[in-house]
Amino acid sequence: MSEVTLTDPIWRAFIGYANVLILKTLLMSFVTAYHRISKRCFATEEDTVYFGIEKKGVVLNNPSVERVRRAHQNDLENIPLFIILGVFYCTTGPALSTALLHFRVFTAARILHSIVYLLQVPQPARALTFFVGMFVNMSLVYHILLNAAF
Amino acid sequence: MSEVTLTDPIWRAFIGYANVLILKTLLMSFVTAYHRISKRCFATEEDTVYFGIEKKGVVLNNPSVERVRRAHQNDLENIPLFIILGVFYCTTGPALSTALLHFRVFTAARILHSIVYLLQVPQPARALTFFVGMFVNMSLVYHILLNAAF
Amino acid sequence: MSEVTLTDPIWRAFIGYANVLILKTLLMSFVTAYHRISKRCFATEEDTVYFGIEKKGVVLNNPSVERVRRAHQNDLENIPLFIILGVFYCTTGPALSTALLHFRVFTAARILHSIVYLLQVPQPARALTFFVGMFVNMSLVYHILLNAAF
Repeated sequence: MSEVTLTDPIWRAFIGYANVLILKTLLMSFVTAYHRISKRCFATEEDTVYFGIEKKGVVLNNPSVERVRRAHQNDLENIPLFIILGVFYCTTGPALSTALLHFRVFTAARILHSIVYLLQVPQPARALTFFVGMFVNMSLVYHILLNAAF
Repeated sequence: MSEVTLTDPIWRAFIGYANVLILKTLLMSFVTAYHRISKRCFATEEDTVYFGIEKKGVVLNNPSVERVRRAHQNDLENIPLFIILGVFYCTTGPALSTALLHFRVFTAARILHSIVYLLQVPQPARALTFFVGMFVNMSLVYHILLNAAF
Repeated sequence: MSEVTLTDPIWRAFIGYANVLILKTLLMSFVTAYHRISKRCFATEEDTVYFGIEKKGVVLNNPSVERVRRAHQNDLENIPLFIILGVFYCTTGPALSTALLHFRVFTAARILHSIVYLLQVPQPARALTFFVGMFVNMSLVYHILLNAAF
């Protein structure tokens, strides 16, 4: 890496896939809200007041709500780190085909991870989608350490 | 987008607002610590030992502590993704006035979100501040997909 | 800041340290998985089915698992924000020695934070590692506001 350059077609592709992943992550908030409202299970007193279920009180253990929250949390543990790794990776001048492979596999794996998690597909479906995403992240870490850092 | 450029006044403004949002998010840790210490409600055994309340043990359901943690978590679900979107957005050469509008509305909405959450202002105050922030993020996603990606 | 430039040796060093921090954060998922599997304490029904412990059901309060999850959460609250701050900081043209000091202290503090947390070292060890990391983040916020923003 003689200088920091963001090669254009790779950067454009990266922004596209990162954008899709961010949109997917943001949408998890709406899935949580859907379950909280339809099941009348709120974590906050003022929400129970607003929906007139003050007597029922807060509910912190609804299975549907907690499932979405775990899926959302798993996104937060993996997707932002992928995007940061992706920015670094773009500055190392990778081959377009290799870069696209990383971006596409990770994006597909994480979308499938959410579907599998929310639809409660039997294991090892969720583990597989998780590890494919993790493997892409590890491959990016390895590539960056080899080509850009130190 | 013929090449990746970060137009200077927009980038400067973006860094400023992002910095304020990061500072706000980091401060949530201190609010949590304040409640944990003042209410003597710790999540970890070695903390109870340090404060000499080993017998009381860990407390994982103090309403004040959990409220701050939910507000902090909501920040983590929205603010880092806004900042990543903002970096991409800056590379698409937006109009300065449009860019500033996005940055200012999001920053104001997220600061208000924390205030409303921590002061337990009745709904729909929190929902409104949340959705204004979410709307800015969605607008950035839309703008980036339209102008930079694919 | 007359234009946005990422000075090369600082950027290279930054990518290296950020990469190490991301790797450290990603590895927390494996530590959680290790405890979940070895203690047979899963948060999700399909996991209990897969391991044939459907009758035992989900366990959400195993101390070892929850300890790793808190350490992981603390990483998510601090490390991505450090990396974003670091990117901004690199564009402000800091002195190489000052920049390296920030990167090295933060990286060391966060690695120690995880070790101290997982090994349950008595307080104030964890508080010290946490506050050193927080202090570096605050120093970056201050430096960026002074040199780049507004």
